[in-house]
Amino acid sequence: MAKITLGQKLPTIGLPVVLVGAKVLGRPNFCPIAWATIIDDEPAKMAVVMAKKRKTKDGIVENGTFSINLPGANSVAATDYCGLHSGYKDDKSGVFDVFFGKTLTAPMARECPINIELTLDDIIEFEGTDMVVGDVEEVYIDEEKMTDGRPDIEKLELLMYLNPGGPYFLKGQTVAEAFKVGREYRPK
Amino acid sequence: MAKITLGQKLPTIGLPVVLVGAKVLGRPNFCPIAWATIIDDEPAKMAVVMAKKRKTKDGIVENGTFSINLPGANSVAATDYCGLHSGYKDDKSGVFDVFFGKTLTAPMARECPINIELTLDDIIEFEGTDMVVGDVEEVYIDEEKMTDGRPDIEKLELLMYLNPGGPYFLKGQTVAEAFKVGREYRPK
Repeated sequence: MAKITLGQKLPTIGLPVVLVGAKVLGRPNFCPIAWATIIDDEPAKMAVVMAKKRKTKDGIVENGTFSINLPGANSVAATDYCGLHSGYKDDKSGVFDVFFGKTLTAPMARECPINIELTLDDIIEFEGTDMVVGDVEEVYIDEEKMTDGRPDIEKLELLMYLNPGGPYFLKGQTVAEAFKVGREYRPK
Repeated sequence: MAKITLGQKLPTIGLPVVLVGAKVLGRPNFCPIAWATIIDDEPAKMAVVMAKKRKTKDGIVENGTFSINLPGANSVAATDYCGLHSGYKDDKSGVFDVFFGKTLTAPMARECPINIELTLDDIIEFEGTDMVVGDVEEVYIDEEKMTDGRPDIEKLELLMYLNPGGPYFLKGQTVAEAFKVGREYRPK
């Protein structure tokens, strides 16, 4: 296969869509982000990367808590709205039906089928962005999105993002089971 | 919607599948990872999170270069194989047809439709994992996966991962355009 070069830029890559939530001066604010990842599983730790100046980040520093909400397909317009409107200019506290968990200060969006409540662990500063690292305190899921006691990915309809510039998409065809399909594989 | 709690653990979340490549003591090694994200777009910077003891990481430290390869559906068994076999025990240099780019030391897997060549920027140490941060030096793509001069996501068939424990899946239905569908949305 002939390869061509695209330069020193970001590749096309599928990423999760998350809504980062924080209480800022008493009001919930939400910021959609696709630059999110897992840092560890035991204990569970996650991170989101955002621009240095973000109202949601102000609230994370203010309270030491935040949320990562995973929107489903039915929240695509509300999610995109949050990305189009800066919390510094517009009040986004009414976009979602907000609930609070054990930390009492991390606002979560009830419309999102999965909500992750975190306490701030660290903010790692890069040249142009900051990475907010948090410890998972609790995970909330809509009871109706469970099947046989487990999260049902088909029911969840989680939004994903295609860098750069979208679109939002859903999980597609399953290709194979992980830690299984490679068992019979032999290198040439 | 009634919410139930799942405890202090990782949520179900869709993530990209990447194969991290490095030359270790002269031989290419590849390690599949789903804990990968973007750090910045201008200049382009990416990060992968891995266990502290990984042969691929040894090679990244040794050479100061590495690659992030995005496998397509036809590499699912080879990708899973790389995850099932530790580079400390098995020689994975023959799994992919390797090529090198401008850094000369970051091995890339020709079978993957997108390859990202990076120089090591930093290794950020967490309690149980390390985050390898790199500057994008070049992005390579199979010419046949381009349509009208742009990467064609339908042709790329990039593998994605569903935390925790798989499966691998492909991009599904497009829900809406980002930075567009929210324009007409009005909060309640």
